[in-house]
Amino acid sequence: MSARSYAQDNRARFLGELKTLVRIPSISAMPAHRDDVRRGAEWLLGHLRSLGFDGEIIPIDGGHPMVYAEWMRAAGRPTVLFYGHYDVQPVDPLEEWTSPPFEPTERGDNLYARGASDDKGQVFAVVKALESHLRGEGRLPLNVKVLIEGEEEIGSPGINRWIERQGKKKVACDFAWVSDGQLFAPELPTIVTGLRGLCYTEVEVRGPSHDLHSGQHGGATPNPINALSTIIAGLKDKRGRVTLPRFYAPVKEPASEEKASWERLPFNEEAYLKELGIPASPGEAGHGILERRWSRPTLDANGIIGGWTGAGPKTVIPAKAMAKISMRLVPEQRAKNVFKAFEKRVRKLAPEAVEVDVRLLSGSDAVVIDPAAPPIKAAAAVARELWGKDPVYIREGGSVPVVTQFSRILKVPTVLFGFGLPDDNLHAPNEKYYLPYFYRGIDTVIAWLERVGG
Amino acid sequence: MSARSYAQDNRARFLGELKTLVRIPSISAMPAHRDDVRRGAEWLLGHLRSLGFDGEIIPIDGGHPMVYAEWMRAAGRPTVLFYGHYDVQPVDPLEEWTSPPFEPTERGDNLYARGASDDKGQVFAVVKALESHLRGEGRLPLNVKVLIEGEEEIGSPGINRWIERQGKKKVACDFAWVSDGQLFAPELPTIVTGLRGLCYTEVEVRGPSHDLHSGQHGGATPNPINALSTIIAGLKDKRGRVTLPRFYAPVKEPASEEKASWERLPFNEEAYLKELGIPASPGEAGHGILERRWSRPTLDANGIIGGWTGAGPKTVIPAKAMAKISMRLVPEQRAKNVFKAFEKRVRKLAPEAVEVDVRLLSGSDAVVIDPAAPPIKAAAAVARELWGKDPVYIREGGSVPVVTQFSRILKVPTVLFGFGLPDDNLHAPNEKYYLPYFYRGIDTVIAWLERVGG
Repeated sequence: MSARSYAQDNRARFLGELKTLVRIPSISAMPAHRDDVRRGAEWLLGHLRSLGFDGEIIPIDGGHPMVYAEWMRAAGRPTVLFYGHYDVQPVDPLEEWTSPPFEPTERGDNLYARGASDDKGQVFAVVKALESHLRGEGRLPLNVKVLIEGEEEIGSPGINRWIERQGKKKVACDFAWVSDGQLFAPELPTIVTGLRGLCYTEVEVRGPSHDLHSGQHGGATPNPINALSTIIAGLKDKRGRVTLPRFYAPVKEPASEEKASWERLPFNEEAYLKELGIPASPGEAGHGILERRWSRPTLDANGIIGGWTGAGPKTVIPAKAMAKISMRLVPEQRAKNVFKAFEKRVRKLAPEAVEVDVRLLSGSDAVVIDPAAPPIKAAAAVARELWGKDPVYIREGGSVPVVTQFSRILKVPTVLFGFGLPDDNLHAPNEKYYLPYFYRGIDTVIAWLERVGG
Repeated sequence: MSARSYAQDNRARFLGELKTLVRIPSISAMPAHRDDVRRGAEWLLGHLRSLGFDGEIIPIDGGHPMVYAEWMRAAGRPTVLFYGHYDVQPVDPLEEWTSPPFEPTERGDNLYARGASDDKGQVFAVVKALESHLRGEGRLPLNVKVLIEGEEEIGSPGINRWIERQGKKKVACDFAWVSDGQLFAPELPTIVTGLRGLCYTEVEVRGPSHDLHSGQHGGATPNPINALSTIIAGLKDKRGRVTLPRFYAPVKEPASEEKASWERLPFNEEAYLKELGIPASPGEAGHGILERRWSRPTLDANGIIGGWTGAGPKTVIPAKAMAKISMRLVPEQRAKNVFKAFEKRVRKLAPEAVEVDVRLLSGSDAVVIDPAAPPIKAAAAVARELWGKDPVYIREGGSVPVVTQFSRILKVPTVLFGFGLPDDNLHAPNEKYYLPYFYRGIDTVIAWLERVGG
């Protein structure tokens, strides 16, 4: 039986198995879910072994393990590395979910669950494409390595170190494929040729040695919340530009062809604002929305906490306050240098009489990929065949930290072809996955394997 | 038996009863403790009735009840109103308490517990002074009303409305006494002649309609945390001055005699900084620490929350962020007008494309009291007799909102004579009460009753 027919015949079972996978609450950011994360890895390894892969759990010291599996019986053929992640984002605010985040629920053509789109559903489409070749045709058309990590949502610290120090040989390959993204618009096959980097920090401000009564001492003591607010406010200017010294110095404008191609995309500013529920896009002056998201670096506070946040008034000046602050980086910037400049700037902005700790939680550089590389061209051909049109080449605002390593260390091109949709509610309540693209994703990977293996 | 001898003989029992009272976790700010708050009121009413008072629980619509009790059998004599509160502050961070907050624990001369000093220990000193007169001498030297509320720590919304609308006649009196404060320094009897007012607000900033992935949308969407930080940062300038329009316009300098008397106080700036655990006092330029705390208005953020605050990185742009922000007011300012100016200023500071809600949680004006009023002079005489020196007259940075009502509506002077110490850790972990001042407080009230009743 052809791989394509096999996939066609087994859709219902594939969906059932995907539901089993997303029921595992593998939230990598929360220590309380450590065992669930491990369970996710073990389930996937067992599944890959049952398909004929050799595999193992690769432990990450102090972190969450990776799943590694390989099928290397296509002598003389090239080797592809498939990457994905089985960890998911936290689910708060839980009360905003229509159905429980770890009880996958079909509504219309969508499957609602945390991880349904990011990234369990997409990684499972790859696994089911591999199964279709193996079970349908008895073999894979080329050598295949699969690496599925459990720390993507916390910045991929373990896998990046591992590739650099131990894993370089094990995952050596000719090209890589990653399905962990979205189509630019429904029915528009989308290949990503650039990803922003990330510099994610935590800033803690300490004032008095203990919480104080704001009536007794207000006016005469440093206030960590006010101080932290002053720091955050000072990190961007009124024009929306980040105020770190030399932050923009290495940043280049995208090539004029690239910018021109973005202008041809079906991007409707009004629809974008409506999707986000905002009246306007208040970004960096002089740059359009797509540039702000793809080719411009930026800075956002991702979390803040301090003092009394329950109901009613409590007249306290807290001893400390903390914020998570991250910067998205473009190809010319280095996360390491940006962090140094960030730390310096934060200390300079800190008002008198407070202590400040600045910690780097996660850092990765941006990456760019050449659309003329053969595996990318093969993906474009599959897009025309199965999606009925030429793919669009875009950049992504988010980071897939490991792709930086594929480029920098393995020195191979990566096909970034996602099967999600822009309204999948990633990292938010009511994450969902459009199931017709789960099935078409499987078919896409099947067809691409035929092309690059042939 | 004289009241003083009775008090002397019953100290051990008084302490045991106080422990029973502080074991009740009457945290008014937390809905989960509603029943405990009520239990505190009922315990106190039962206790006062057992001493011979007539009394009742006065309900507060939607709030926590008050205890009212009276002994009106001294025909032709004046009437005093004693005020206190039986509610307490929340206890977080719980892990910083050496002994559990609601298990009163003696260490050295101190009793450690939430509410031990603020205000259960002090209000109970008054109750035990009344008991000593009643049980020792069979009567009180004047008419006594007692009003103990359960919402002081949440800004006294109910009692203030009640006095204004229903309670004016019931609590009519010739003068009032409040023990809810601290000596300026150990062994220094302290009478407060001014209290700052309070304007306590909550500011909520909303951006996108749901949490967003900061990689996908960062740079193109408003960020509620950044926006809230900008607002808070803009509420004070670099010289530590509040930037509300006309905020300082009505503010007067204290009289030169008052300022001169403050300069004679045993205030050691170095010791103050050490007590607070801060390297410097970064307040309003041009004013000393005592002025900053007593006679200058100020603004502090008391709490802030938004986005991801758990362990590790989460790349989210949250839909909203919230802060609690309060201003301490001086006598010439009106809380109502300050709130209007605050709301206007916050809206003006809000960046593009966010929605802002500004809510007033609590407001009260400041108050000043004439030290030449007869009940204040009687308290000064008792200070000389029992504490061995003239009292100092200071202002307090905190608010006792109901004292504003005594001045404005009952039109009577209030003696503000506290039995706590500056290092009692009010509103903080490890609150404590210095027990020798519990007993001397009882003696002080006994002696004052004799003077004002005689």
